[in-house]
Parts: sequence; structure tokens; C-alpha cells
Amino acid sequence: MSDTPNLRIPGPTPVPPDILEAVAHPMVNHRGREFAALISRVAERLKDWFQTSNDVLILSASGTGGLESAVVSTLSPRDRVLSVSIGAFGERFAAIADTYGAEVIPLQYEWGQAARAEDVRQALAEHPDVKAVLVTHNETSTGVTNPLEEIARAIRSQESGVRSQGPSRASGRTDGPLVLVDAVSSLGAIPFEADGWGLDVVVTGSQKGWMVPPGLAFVSMSERAWRAYENAKMPRFYLDLGRHRDALPKGQTPWTPAMSIFFGLDVALERMAEEGAERIFTRHASMGRMVREGVKAFGLELLCQDERYASDTVTAIKCPEGVEVSALRNTMEDEYNVVIAGGQGKLQGKIFRIGHLGLVEEEDIRETLAALEQTLAKLGFAVRAAR
Amino acid sequence: MSDTPNLRIPGPTPVPPDILEAVAHPMVNHRGREFAALISRVAERLKDWFQTSNDVLILSASGTGGLESAVVSTLSPRDRVLSVSIGAFGERFAAIADTYGAEVIPLQYEWGQAARAEDVRQALAEHPDVKAVLVTHNETSTGVTNPLEEIARAIRSQESGVRSQGPSRASGRTDGPLVLVDAVSSLGAIPFEADGWGLDVVVTGSQKGWMVPPGLAFVSMSERAWRAYENAKMPRFYLDLGRHRDALPKGQTPWTPAMSIFFGLDVALERMAEEGAERIFTRHASMGRMVREGVKAFGLELLCQDERYASDTVTAIKCPEGVEVSALRNTMEDEYNVVIAGGQGKLQGKIFRIGHLGLVEEEDIRETLAALEQTLAKLGFAVRAAR
Repeated sequence: MSDTPNLRIPGPTPVPPDILEAVAHPMVNHRGREFAALISRVAERLKDWFQTSNDVLILSASGTGGLESAVVSTLSPRDRVLSVSIGAFGERFAAIADTYGAEVIPLQYEWGQAARAEDVRQALAEHPDVKAVLVTHNETSTGVTNPLEEIARAIRSQESGVRSQGPSRASGRTDGPLVLVDAVSSLGAIPFEADGWGLDVVVTGSQKGWMVPPGLAFVSMSERAWRAYENAKMPRFYLDLGRHRDALPKGQTPWTPAMSIFFGLDVALERMAEEGAERIFTRHASMGRMVREGVKAFGLELLCQDERYASDTVTAIKCPEGVEVSALRNTMEDEYNVVIAGGQGKLQGKIFRIGHLGLVEEEDIRETLAALEQTLAKLGFAVRAAR
Repeated sequence: MSDTPNLRIPGPTPVPPDILEAVAHPMVNHRGREFAALISRVAERLKDWFQTSNDVLILSASGTGGLESAVVSTLSPRDRVLSVSIGAFGERFAAIADTYGAEVIPLQYEWGQAARAEDVRQALAEHPDVKAVLVTHNETSTGVTNPLEEIARAIRSQESGVRSQGPSRASGRTDGPLVLVDAVSSLGAIPFEADGWGLDVVVTGSQKGWMVPPGLAFVSMSERAWRAYENAKMPRFYLDLGRHRDALPKGQTPWTPAMSIFFGLDVALERMAEEGAERIFTRHASMGRMVREGVKAFGLELLCQDERYASDTVTAIKCPEGVEVSALRNTMEDEYNVVIAGGQGKLQGKIFRIGHLGLVEEEDIRETLAALEQTLAKLGFAVRAAR
């Protein structure tokens, strides 16, 4: 057991010492040459992880701020949007759109389930005037990864449907619905293709797969999204993506950026490039499997029943009867120095969550599972089998 | 000349090594006990600097995000607001209100001048339906400090005017206009009294007087402002001050906070408490005077002609004829390791600015003035006299 806690929450994730050291870089002029070179370098490198040829914009905000930037930069009040929601963050994305006056059509799933592409296709057929679909890639609150590529394909097929209507095309919408994606807890950790899958706005946050402290959101916009931007009427200022786009060629951000996090990100992206996407994705897949197999071996049940959709970045586990989530978490932290998360929203007190994204190795998971096993035993749960 | 540049821009300000070290603190659970203790401690200490009994809320955003939070948390579209603007940041505050649909009544001054309380009183008399006055305490773009206490008194006298109207009071507004203050580059460096002066919303940013990296905005709201919040209809989510107020008693923020900056702030506030407000304010006053006397001795002219309003945190200096601002700045940086700022907006290419807030001592100013003197000579300007 080391002094630094084994931080196994789904973000902020642990930050390696060399990245922390970079975060402590002295201040420089945010309108000067050194920072311009830095932001250009990291913005370029982020494109590889997004798998996009479009600019990746960097906002000084949390992932939620990033989601808001996606909504207000592409939509107008009274626009109809389809909200594909499988948990707390899906609800949050919808709440943002609703706050700004969008008409939200909810497509909700029981928490723990993934969305089905066929349902999305059908909802769009019923609502052909939908301007955008809000979808979560990896739902941090439930440990479920949506089949995003399939869902996006279903949305895109809607587009050709619209196009084939012929005459109506000239008069109105030539594009299908925009695909707005919350990739906060997936990007950089599991396979992702913004352009290949036809995603229009993609949002992620620095404190997840990137091994960097919280404070920055990264957002990419497709050409279709930029066309929508021109007509989008929701009010926007601090989170206006157009202002960020216009500042980037000068190596700047429109407002004073959270520079410390940029310095850390620069080192993190170098480190990630060294490890390589394939190895990073394989490592996350393997860590995800190790957590799921471990907790099932104890006789615990995953919230995500269909393991095809189990997340490789966060696992939600049903708290067994007779055990209090708060007691479980406190014991693990106080006695084993392992920090895990509880449930959010309606899952509070019912599940606990283990984060395994960013800086995570077998040793971290072994330590976590050992602490969990001993804690459960202490709290009176009959752990099924030693691993 | 040290390796670390002498960063004499009006923010980000230099961060002392002990604060940088704190910024590199490993991540903790942002919903856990350690962070709860930290945010409670810094939020409490900030109240002393704001001189308020109200909560100080901490947003993960730049000062501009803080200004937007003030507008959207107190106003509704079509509300009339009086914008008292003496420079680029006054214009920005107004642009935010305009973006969200407020009807902005401009009271603009030539850049380099301070606002006059009497003009504000008169503008409010002409527009008795004004819901809020937007005012900049210290205008970073021009190096001018507004007589904020007097201006606030003029606004408050309007309030009694409204009250004395008698019958109309019951039917409508019982409060006078709200006073929304941009104190980004003043708070923590020069005397300030949120409650004593009757200010309703006060906004500042971490990268200024606080000697902390950019990434956080601090905002206080009066009881009147919270009453306005209940009826304010502008859309708000990420920058919703009510959500920040509701999270604070739990020792949390509504969204994942930029924790690294919080760790730095904790040490910075300890350091500032040790030095004490009086000494900090005296030091800034003395540094401001030293800069002004120094540049005037070279034969240069201040943008702020009436020195009663000259800022003690940033000085704007007219660039002498025959000297290019960009050449001046580049030479100072490349040859003397002193980084100064240029002009913003319509002052670009016409002035340069020296920041002297936060971590600033006589030695920093001496070095800056020496570099300026030698640079001016190199660029062919006949420096009037050696200091």
C-alpha cells in the first residue's frame, strides 16, 4: 500500500509523476510563442485519437461544459433533438438541450442497458424533423458502452432517407440529423472513429483516458456541424466553439486557458503516442475483463447484464444485500487506500463503480480486487471464492 | 537574468514555486472528504478578500466564464442593463449580456478614462427600468481603475429613488438595479468591499492577484442577486451559480472541478493571509507608482491621463512614435527575458502594458524598467533621462 491512494474512480484518473511535474510548469504568456507552439502540437495530436481530419478545439471547462458547447454551437431553440439516454450522463446531455429550449424527444433505456440502433432508426422515422441525436458513447454512471458505430449508421441511413425524398430536399434540410457524442469516458481508452463513423460533434474531458487533471474539454466538429453552427441561434459566449476555431490558427484560445493542464496534456500525449493506440486499447480491454471476472468470481453481479456492452473503462457493480455502499467505500479507502465511486442519481446506494481508464495496470486492479474481497468479508458478505 | 521569464503581463501572473508544487498534487476524489475540506477552506478564505458574508462560488472557467455566470444567473432576455464601459473588458461584459438577449444601454468612455459616478446616476435617471449595471472595477486593457465605491453609491441612491415612489413599489421592483462587477484584475490586489460598497455580483479570476494559474473564476452573489436568480430566465447550465451554491455545503462543485488549481489556491491564500491585506495593497500601490514614475521619467506617456484613476495592477503606456509595439515586446523578451503585453482591440499597436499584480516585488519592476529603457534606446527612441 503506497501513500498515494489507488484512485479507482472513473475520473479524475491518477496522473503519472512526469505529467504532474509538467502541470507545475511556470506560467508563460498565453498569447505568446511558447504557448502557441504547445496548443498547436496538442491539438494536432488529439486529432489522431479522435480519428478526425477536423480541428480539435480545447476549452477550459469540464466535460459538462464541453457537452454544452456542442449543443449551443449547433442548435436553435425549438429544434427537435432525439436524446438516446442510458444513464445519468445521457440525462445530463438532454437536460442541457432542454435548458436552451430544444424540444427533447427521449429514447430512454433502463440504467444498465445499452441503446439499440434499431430503436434509434425507428424513432427517427417517427420524427423525421429531428435536427440532432444526442448519444453517450460510454455511460460513466452505469458502466455501459453503446454500440456507437451501429447507432451512427442508423442515423446516417436516415440521412439518405431524407435525401431520397427528392423535391423536399431543395427546400429544406439537405443533411440528416447531426450526431452529437458524449465520448468523455471513452476517448483515448477504447477504439473510436469520429470521421469513419460519421460523428458530427465529439466531446471528451482531460481527466479521463488522458491521465491529465480535470479542467479541459476537447471537442471536434464536422463540416456538417460547422454548417449548422452558422444558423444555430442558441446563445453562446464562453462555450462558443466558433470563437475557439477562430483563435486556434493563431495558437490561442479566445479566453485565458487553464495552461497548467495544457502543459500536462503535452507530456501525456507524448506518452500515449509511445505506448500506441493498439496497446492502449488492448490494455483497457484486458483491465475491463479482469475487473468483471474478478467481481463475478466473488459472487457479485454486474449492473450491465449483457457483457457485449460492458464498459472497458468503468465497471458498475450491484451492491450485495446487507452491505452499505458508503461502508464499503469508506472501508476500502480507510483501510486499503483504494478509492472507488458510488452510484449516481437513482443508482445512489445501489451500486458501486470501479474506474479502470487512463493510468491503469494489472497491479492496480489486483490491489483493488484484493481490497474489495477483504472489505466484503469484513462487512459480512460471504465472498464466493478466492481468486 | 534568470531562466524563468519575468512575466509582466496582466495575467497569468507568475506563480511562486511553492504554489506550483501544490498545483502538482496527485489527483483525489472530487466527491471525497479531502477535496471537501479543501474547497470549504478556500471558499471561506476568499470571503475575506471579497469582504463579503455571502458564499464565494468557485467555477472551473476563466474570468470571462465568470462574467457570463453573473449575467445568466441574474437576468432575463429583454431586461435592460446599463453597461458602464471604459475598455475592452467592459465591452466584453456588455457583449455577453447582449448575446443572451439583454437590452444593453451603453455608457462608454474613451479608452484611458475612468467612468464618472454622476454619469451613471444620470443614465439611471433616464432609464429607471434598468435591472442591472455592468461595471468593470479595474480595466485590464487600459490600466484604469474605476471609482467603484462612488459608482455603486450612485446606483444605490437610484434604489432609494425607486423606493420613494411609493405606490409603484408594491406592483413591481422593490430593489434598485443590481450591481454586477468585473473585479478580475483588482480583487486580492487593491482594496475591495463587496458588501460595504453594496455590490451584488462580483467576479474574479485565479490567474491575477491570486498568484495561481488560470482555470478558476470566483464569484460572490448578494441576497438581492439570489432573489433575482429565482426569476432570471436566461438559459444556464455549466455556468449556473445556483448549482454551485447548492453543491458547496457538500464540499463539492456541480461538475468535475479543475482540482490542480484548487490545490495551488489553498497555498496561495495561506501565503496571502501571512502577508496580510494591508501589506499586499500597499505593495501594489507602491509597485504601480514605481512603474508610472519610471516610464514617465523615460519621456513616455501613460494612457490613463488622470492619475487618480491609474491602476495599481496594470499600466498602459502609449508607444512612442517611431517604435513598433511588436519590436519592443520581442526585444524585451528575447534579449532581456521580460515579457510585457501589447494593446487589445482598438489599442493594438498603439500601447503596451506592464502587469504588476500578484507576485511582484521592487526587483521585478527594476528589471522591467531597465529592460524597457535599453530596448527603447536600441529601437531609436531618445530616452529622456536615466532613472
